[in-house]
Amino acid sequence: MIISMKLHATREEIEAVCERIREFGYKVHTIQGEERVVIGAVGVGDVTPCLESLQGMPGVENAMRISAPYKFVSREFKSERSRIKVNGLEIGGADFVVMAGPCSVESEQQIMQTAEAVARLGGRILRGGAFKPRTSPYDFQGLEVEGLKLLRKAKEATGLAIITEVMSDRDVDLVAEYADILQIGARNMQNFALLKALGRVKRPVLLKRGMSSTLRELLMSAEYIVAAGNPNVILCERGIRTFETATRNTCDLTAVAVLHEMTHLPVVVDPSHATGKRSLVPPLSRAAVAVGADGLLVEVHPCPDKAVSDGAQSLTLEQFATMMQDLAPYLNIWKQARAAEK
Amino acid sequence: MIISMKLHATREEIEAVCERIREFGYKVHTIQGEERVVIGAVGVGDVTPCLESLQGMPGVENAMRISAPYKFVSREFKSERSRIKVNGLEIGGADFVVMAGPCSVESEQQIMQTAEAVARLGGRILRGGAFKPRTSPYDFQGLEVEGLKLLRKAKEATGLAIITEVMSDRDVDLVAEYADILQIGARNMQNFALLKALGRVKRPVLLKRGMSSTLRELLMSAEYIVAAGNPNVILCERGIRTFETATRNTCDLTAVAVLHEMTHLPVVVDPSHATGKRSLVPPLSRAAVAVGADGLLVEVHPCPDKAVSDGAQSLTLEQFATMMQDLAPYLNIWKQARAAEK
Amino acid sequence: MIISMKLHATREEIEAVCERIREFGYKVHTIQGEERVVIGAVGVGDVTPCLESLQGMPGVENAMRISAPYKFVSREFKSERSRIKVNGLEIGGADFVVMAGPCSVESEQQIMQTAEAVARLGGRILRGGAFKPRTSPYDFQGLEVEGLKLLRKAKEATGLAIITEVMSDRDVDLVAEYADILQIGARNMQNFALLKALGRVKRPVLLKRGMSSTLRELLMSAEYIVAAGNPNVILCERGIRTFETATRNTCDLTAVAVLHEMTHLPVVVDPSHATGKRSLVPPLSRAAVAVGADGLLVEVHPCPDKAVSDGAQSLTLEQFATMMQDLAPYLNIWKQARAAEK
Amino acid sequence: MIISMKLHATREEIEAVCERIREFGYKVHTIQGEERVVIGAVGVGDVTPCLESLQGMPGVENAMRISAPYKFVSREFKSERSRIKVNGLEIGGADFVVMAGPCSVESEQQIMQTAEAVARLGGRILRGGAFKPRTSPYDFQGLEVEGLKLLRKAKEATGLAIITEVMSDRDVDLVAEYADILQIGARNMQNFALLKALGRVKRPVLLKRGMSSTLRELLMSAEYIVAAGNPNVILCERGIRTFETATRNTCDLTAVAVLHEMTHLPVVVDPSHATGKRSLVPPLSRAAVAVGADGLLVEVHPCPDKAVSDGAQSLTLEQFATMMQDLAPYLNIWKQARAAEK
Repeated sequence: MIISMKLHATREEIEAVCERIREFGYKVHTIQGEERVVIGAVGVGDVTPCLESLQGMPGVENAMRISAPYKFVSREFKSERSRIKVNGLEIGGADFVVMAGPCSVESEQQIMQTAEAVARLGGRILRGGAFKPRTSPYDFQGLEVEGLKLLRKAKEATGLAIITEVMSDRDVDLVAEYADILQIGARNMQNFALLKALGRVKRPVLLKRGMSSTLRELLMSAEYIVAAGNPNVILCERGIRTFETATRNTCDLTAVAVLHEMTHLPVVVDPSHATGKRSLVPPLSRAAVAVGADGLLVEVHPCPDKAVSDGAQSLTLEQFATMMQDLAPYLNIWKQARAAEK
Repeated sequence: MIISMKLHATREEIEAVCERIREFGYKVHTIQGEERVVIGAVGVGDVTPCLESLQGMPGVENAMRISAPYKFVSREFKSERSRIKVNGLEIGGADFVVMAGPCSVESEQQIMQTAEAVARLGGRILRGGAFKPRTSPYDFQGLEVEGLKLLRKAKEATGLAIITEVMSDRDVDLVAEYADILQIGARNMQNFALLKALGRVKRPVLLKRGMSSTLRELLMSAEYIVAAGNPNVILCERGIRTFETATRNTCDLTAVAVLHEMTHLPVVVDPSHATGKRSLVPPLSRAAVAVGADGLLVEVHPCPDKAVSDGAQSLTLEQFATMMQDLAPYLNIWKQARAAEK
Repeated sequence: MIISMKLHATREEIEAVCERIREFGYKVHTIQGEERVVIGAVGVGDVTPCLESLQGMPGVENAMRISAPYKFVSREFKSERSRIKVNGLEIGGADFVVMAGPCSVESEQQIMQTAEAVARLGGRILRGGAFKPRTSPYDFQGLEVEGLKLLRKAKEATGLAIITEVMSDRDVDLVAEYADILQIGARNMQNFALLKALGRVKRPVLLKRGMSSTLRELLMSAEYIVAAGNPNVILCERGIRTFETATRNTCDLTAVAVLHEMTHLPVVVDPSHATGKRSLVPPLSRAAVAVGADGLLVEVHPCPDKAVSDGAQSLTLEQFATMMQDLAPYLNIWKQARAAEK
Repeated sequence: MIISMKLHATREEIEAVCERIREFGYKVHTIQGEERVVIGAVGVGDVTPCLESLQGMPGVENAMRISAPYKFVSREFKSERSRIKVNGLEIGGADFVVMAGPCSVESEQQIMQTAEAVARLGGRILRGGAFKPRTSPYDFQGLEVEGLKLLRKAKEATGLAIITEVMSDRDVDLVAEYADILQIGARNMQNFALLKALGRVKRPVLLKRGMSSTLRELLMSAEYIVAAGNPNVILCERGIRTFETATRNTCDLTAVAVLHEMTHLPVVVDPSHATGKRSLVPPLSRAAVAVGADGLLVEVHPCPDKAVSDGAQSLTLEQFATMMQDLAPYLNIWKQARAAEK
């Protein structure tokens, strides 16, 4: 912790700050600058309470934390990449994972037809929403348990693993019965009751970045899950909210590279929600591979114009096939680079 | 709904769009411009599914909704202000409400001392967190049920009503036993499982705007609660996230005036979270009164420097007293203006 | 300057950083924490070059500046408010200033009619654009010199002082012949060639905050003008760009209070550009007075629906009259507070 | 133009709007919906004045433009890609262009050494700032004419073309004597005096997107230059300002794909300013190639730690060599895709 005092801070104010730091159990180092005094506090343990206490004290200009507030998810804590095993894949390791499927599970025919195509075209994990977070109470809210059962049927028919969203701590156990990966939506990234519940199950979790969450906050939410006992967290960049309206969200693709410096957890990209527009999904997917993401989460629908949700951003099965073909040379370079790491 | 076609859209593409609109049960009006065709769709009911279906169709440039997607909370639905009765006050009506108290309930002494001062200085509702949403799993998470019991004790001693946060649909019934108003935090504004549960209780709800939520989304979340059976919703502006880092958030004070045009629900302002800094709370509170807000939600603590959370933005009891005094002439103008409305 | 080293920074990396700091002429203070090393650099003069040099060095986690990078405009440099004298007013002192008028000067009749009303209703400064920054090359670009001459005519007829925009360093001398205050638009806040030219004239300058500029950057731009020789700078909050689209911009009203802590320069608010909507101008103006602004810059037009620019946000003369009347009790409180300061 | 009326708009209000539209020379089409009236206005020419006039009229809910406000730069105006010839390259056509060099020209040795390396490693255009836009008046402002002369010397020695920034309409002719491409910085994207001056020279212009500019505004600024007579405009994505502070800016890489749908102009990416951090430049550069950008603008310095500006984001010559090598397989795929287009 570094505390910089105001230009005209008095001797008493400075001494009170030092005293407060000592009360919290830290050691004090004072630097007398030409213009102002800067105080360093050294010690172990979470500094948040001390930091918040100091911020409002008289004479304090600014109090900053130096160490990252997360531990288990930090690259400093564990330097090699985490590999999360799902359905024979090593996500975060040597395998690039493509998770594809419709926004919502709508019917048996829809999910079976999609699953068959995803499996045939190289996908390994089927996505599909049974519980749907919708902005409007009047929009389709998902088939719920019925949807979960259809996903299981598709899994049995194709051998694909299943990723699907859970929206409440109440439903975690239920969804975990059906899903191979539990998906947490952007709007729930800081639903702390839900995060704690996820720490108590064994299933891997895909945690989406909130629409206005910093990477630090994303890692803090991952830390909630890991600290509660579940180390298998996959992070997902799905676009952030900015002033630009030409796309649904602004995909922060650089975040993938930054996260790989900050954490050992795998990072995948959702180009469908990031753009909101079908034609932009293939170029963004290529860029996600090139920037070093560990996988993609893509919306695919046999008939997007008739989808009950997110039709405009879903690829048709034909478009998905073309995209997978175009991705192939990029995936080759990706694999060589990943192999060269070891 | 208005659909504008691309400049070079073919006759077939235009016809397909018209056909799709008719399938959804709407009537079609085509406008042939000098450059492009624009199609209007007229009818009743939620247009979202039709809109999403059209957005991805070939030849479509853009598909826009014209009517607001919310109903019950709209000012067009109900033109007079909603008045929510709590503890003898008419929030949204003739009474300006001051809700004050600590970020977290910490101890009996802390909450009793604060409650006594709030009651004495003109506050009518005591705030205090028992369940705390914290960015870090290592931060203080609240006294939970113990905290609720201390709030009840403070209520009995002072006659203040209680507002406190609920974080999970699991806890709604429990918290409703103790609280006069249920508070929903910014991070849970789109926790739809929670919103639905709030529709089933009788208690008024204070719904905070999400850090990156538009006013339209805020109203959609309020609509969830109202549509599920609970009309007593108070909206709260608490600052949004922008690029500026000089304050913790950017308080969108104009939103109060905009919301009053869009909805009949009351709107209060939280100057403490909006600024993150004690010295900025009084000027922002004055501005909130002047812009026409229905109330304030302010953090006050007997000893902010020793608070377990949000100390830097909490007023001392003395500062709160001074602020209430300075607000008095503004509240007089407010009351005259509100009385003149009728 | 504080430099925090990475967790596993080597002894050599730390030593290289210390050596670099010494090369730039600063003294080194090293703090050995439990986890990492933090280095303080102490000395005088602008630290930017040293900071930038250190940021990329091996083993460096982060290098932060402690002292503000501006000097002359800082409240630490000069603690009492700056008062800028225009037309008998002390802007920043005991007088609240209302500057009003049309977005663009359009015709003699329009500007004379407006000026007469502004003068009669209590405004002291007439605004009106002769050189117009327009997003589109096909929009009206202003009457240029002809507009300046009309402003002079209005000044002679009413005794109002004139504020008008200058867009290029080429035009500074020309505009300074006609204007009492030179206005710099948000899009030119970091037009450094223009800022330097403004430092060489005697006229007061009203500097608008850029749409995505931090307060620190706004002050740095003011510092350009002051450092070049012109101390008479008025700052203007006119709304920043955020994700919210319900208003044209998001007015950061708290910025007024923050700026008053950071600088001695006066701060005015432009509620017209901040909201983009006529009905929101009066409530936001009241809030601006209450938060402690030094003045308002308001768009007023005798017939806004026929204005060539910004009609939707301009008040009619009648609306302006009503607003001025409603502001009166707030201005009384403002004046008492300002008088009590001394 | 589409005007949607309020729910309770009166017959008189609707008729007044129709009348106003006809005054502006457009035809009126009225759609009577179940809930409200929507009015379409059809005709040719710029609708901005009419739109602004309507927005504030009584009974109007919203007035929206349907056609894009730009013409010459639109893909609808010219469907094939523009190719801009510089130094034997076809930017926007079959050639991917790498422009590299230091942020600032500092000395003969520095620029010659960099130029030699850029030329040897496959760059074709040398970047280097002689006029520098700096946030602080106390930072290095560039060598100005002396810097331009050093760039010419480097050009003569290596055969590289030169790109360098121009900051004022005053300097356009001077810089055009030395530069093969005139660079416009993000802070000047809406310096309209400068844009108009650029329309009058023959040199290609590289126009950087403003920090908070929408793609539509970027295209409007390009339209200024093209409409004034200079069709050779290259657009540049360099990161936008968002709430995230982990990177200097947020690179909106999807914007490249969106711009390619909206316009025929070439689009390059500046990964150095977008990230602000050296280690992120290579992954982002790979992603820029994969997303389909027409080129890169990269900061390279023989000794970044001693650079007078932007050292933290500059690559060393060795790092640039490695990056160019790693980019090679991506550039092969890029060239095949571009060739397949024809």
